[in-house]
Amino acid sequence: MNIVLLSGGSGKRLWPLTNDVRSRQFLKLFKREDGSYESMIQRVCRQIKSVDKDSVITVATSKEQVSAVQNQLDYQAKICVEPVRKNTFPVVALSAAYLRDVEQVPETEVVVVCPIDPYVENDYFASLKKLEDIVKSGDTNLALLGITPETPSDKYGYIIPEEVSEISGVVTFKEKPDVQTAENYIAQGALWNGGVFAFQLKYVLDKAHELINFVDYEDLYDQYEKLQSISFDYAIVEKESNIKVLRYEGIWKDLSTWDALCEEMDDSIIGHAIQNDTCQNVNVINELNVPVMCIGLKDVVITASAEGILVSDKKQAQTIEPYVDSLTERVMYAEKSWGDFRVLDVEDNSLTVKVTLNPGFSMKYHSHDYRDEVWTIISGTGRTIVDGMEELVGPGDVITMEAGCKHTVIADTKMQIIEVQLGKEINVHDKRKYELEG
Amino acid sequence: MNIVLLSGGSGKRLWPLTNDVRSRQFLKLFKREDGSYESMIQRVCRQIKSVDKDSVITVATSKEQVSAVQNQLDYQAKICVEPVRKNTFPVVALSAAYLRDVEQVPETEVVVVCPIDPYVENDYFASLKKLEDIVKSGDTNLALLGITPETPSDKYGYIIPEEVSEISGVVTFKEKPDVQTAENYIAQGALWNGGVFAFQLKYVLDKAHELINFVDYEDLYDQYEKLQSISFDYAIVEKESNIKVLRYEGIWKDLSTWDALCEEMDDSIIGHAIQNDTCQNVNVINELNVPVMCIGLKDVVITASAEGILVSDKKQAQTIEPYVDSLTERVMYAEKSWGDFRVLDVEDNSLTVKVTLNPGFSMKYHSHDYRDEVWTIISGTGRTIVDGMEELVGPGDVITMEAGCKHTVIADTKMQIIEVQLGKEINVHDKRKYELEG
Repeated sequence: MNIVLLSGGSGKRLWPLTNDVRSRQFLKLFKREDGSYESMIQRVCRQIKSVDKDSVITVATSKEQVSAVQNQLDYQAKICVEPVRKNTFPVVALSAAYLRDVEQVPETEVVVVCPIDPYVENDYFASLKKLEDIVKSGDTNLALLGITPETPSDKYGYIIPEEVSEISGVVTFKEKPDVQTAENYIAQGALWNGGVFAFQLKYVLDKAHELINFVDYEDLYDQYEKLQSISFDYAIVEKESNIKVLRYEGIWKDLSTWDALCEEMDDSIIGHAIQNDTCQNVNVINELNVPVMCIGLKDVVITASAEGILVSDKKQAQTIEPYVDSLTERVMYAEKSWGDFRVLDVEDNSLTVKVTLNPGFSMKYHSHDYRDEVWTIISGTGRTIVDGMEELVGPGDVITMEAGCKHTVIADTKMQIIEVQLGKEINVHDKRKYELEG
Repeated sequence: MNIVLLSGGSGKRLWPLTNDVRSRQFLKLFKREDGSYESMIQRVCRQIKSVDKDSVITVATSKEQVSAVQNQLDYQAKICVEPVRKNTFPVVALSAAYLRDVEQVPETEVVVVCPIDPYVENDYFASLKKLEDIVKSGDTNLALLGITPETPSDKYGYIIPEEVSEISGVVTFKEKPDVQTAENYIAQGALWNGGVFAFQLKYVLDKAHELINFVDYEDLYDQYEKLQSISFDYAIVEKESNIKVLRYEGIWKDLSTWDALCEEMDDSIIGHAIQNDTCQNVNVINELNVPVMCIGLKDVVITASAEGILVSDKKQAQTIEPYVDSLTERVMYAEKSWGDFRVLDVEDNSLTVKVTLNPGFSMKYHSHDYRDEVWTIISGTGRTIVDGMEELVGPGDVITMEAGCKHTVIADTKMQIIEVQLGKEINVHDKRKYELEG
């Protein structure tokens, strides 16, 4: 199965664990059988592989998320990079062009497009495989997944099928209705639109060429910023008459609020925390290295990270967005392709950061125009290259780099470094990148 | 007025703002007229000076607190250091010997002993002055302050006075009673024992010599560890017949729990925090440099520091002690005589600390046997001395010190330093101190 996972942008409803570069699909909140935690993107990819071990996974995402995707999926997925964020039609078109022109996937192959963050069991991915078969059979241009509604929710679009059978034609699509209207739809056998589409690669490429004047992937990539930001549903699905919907009756959850996420947590505590015995229905996710102590709380979620601390009534936690918008936007923690960084201290003319490099990885060779940097290696061994000079380094070694000086570090074992940045204008944009010579 | 303030040990009921070296009297929670915050010890000393500008204040405290007292009182108080913690009789005896032998206070002078942390208005200190006058008049050996009880509390000892007048003799003293008994006492005009004693220096020195075989302050100091740990009430007050109690009717509060402290906070937020409009009766004290966001909470106190995060129902906050006992005891923040330090990062073989030195101050000249250190100056200017070599330093300068190397830094302006400690056995006891030569 060729599957394209759409890895969406950063919502603020899961602050402080999400930030401008860390979206909810990267949060390691789900317990594996071995007791460790995995993120939604890791969980979904593991589930896909367990249903279809030969599946080829492509993640369509923005530049900002590429590092985290590579880091979390251990470089096992292909990545189609969106130059800027657009709605689903442009990204599906770009992914289709990427698969044909970059990955050389034949136009006759079937592709399944799916959001990256449904909380589901394996049977969901077995249904995606079934969607592939429906398209392969040649009876239909487009196959969709319809989720059996649990409640008359006003959060989803609805598909009205022709009949109440596992596979059906489609009468019509309905935008998010109010609850009363949703009840009427459900009485007619309506399904939630799960945002899953299966099609022959050729089908979507033809449709894309009808709507956009482009030659190939590279050309589409270059034009991307100017493309109209419309949904795949609006541009394609709702105009297609030869279409089938597959009814899915298993578990399907949208974990986009703290309340919904807490319901799926196996342990009420992740990280260092204590709850006394008068606490009821309290969840804590603590990424800091100091304890959170909860005394006499009820129906509360507490989440703490390098970005901040949220203490919220669970039901009200979905209202945090406007408050998060009022906060400053310095990113205090980020996963990078080579490891991660965590801001330890912020002053007017300095920033202290803890950098972790995974074994075998290195930063890009780079320089800064307006800041000096000091590295103190606190663990691991590797090599630094500073203005072309390579040196072996280990714990206790100190490397000073003046503004303008080119530098990188290559980790032979896992390395941890305390980096002190010094200057009057410290910001993430002050960076020039170079190719390493030789 | 000669006043001795007893600065007690660290309770755990105000964790995470208190720790093994930071007691509640050092927390800056009380708003000054200029909008800045002062601690209990700063507040009490300011109040004493406003009632009696010529008063001489001595703080009796343990070694661990000396730095914080000097830092917060700007070196304006005398300090009588307890070698180890004992009950009130030994510390009052030691303070009396200190005043006579070190500070040369004549034995005929009157001394008032008072806890360092009553939350009161200025009239309380006016009453202490009155206690001094009562003793000066020569009619009595001991004068006490009796607090008019607000409730039949089981937390305090009671004084049964002879009559319900401002100044009275004493019939008897009662240990902490149950609430029912307390009600009976109050019906008889009983007063709370406020832990305040006024006496002629000679009186307490004579009593001390009766109970302890010592020559002078130095001798008493040397014997201190072996002294019986008994209260001044038990050793002296309850055995004295010629005694007076002064009735105090003003505000007097014991702010030893988060609930009590929150009631006296002028603002419901100290530090960086946001409360949405469905929050009711919520207080936040946040010493971290990231925001705390509160959504839909009621009757909750949240306190965050480098030590950890407490989220508690206010009424239940007094029950935290056993939970705090279960935590590890690394001190993450401390005020020192020369400034303060804050732990930024803890790893197995390294510790990263932010050190702030006040202008004109320096660390002790010292070395470590088992750890190397790296300093990166992030702000301010001063001089380092490393193995006898003095150098001018400023932002961006890096100083590396191997184990065994003697070092210090002298701040000419306020300095901030990122210190990385490296070694297999990093602990606060690995320190040798030296005198600076020349």
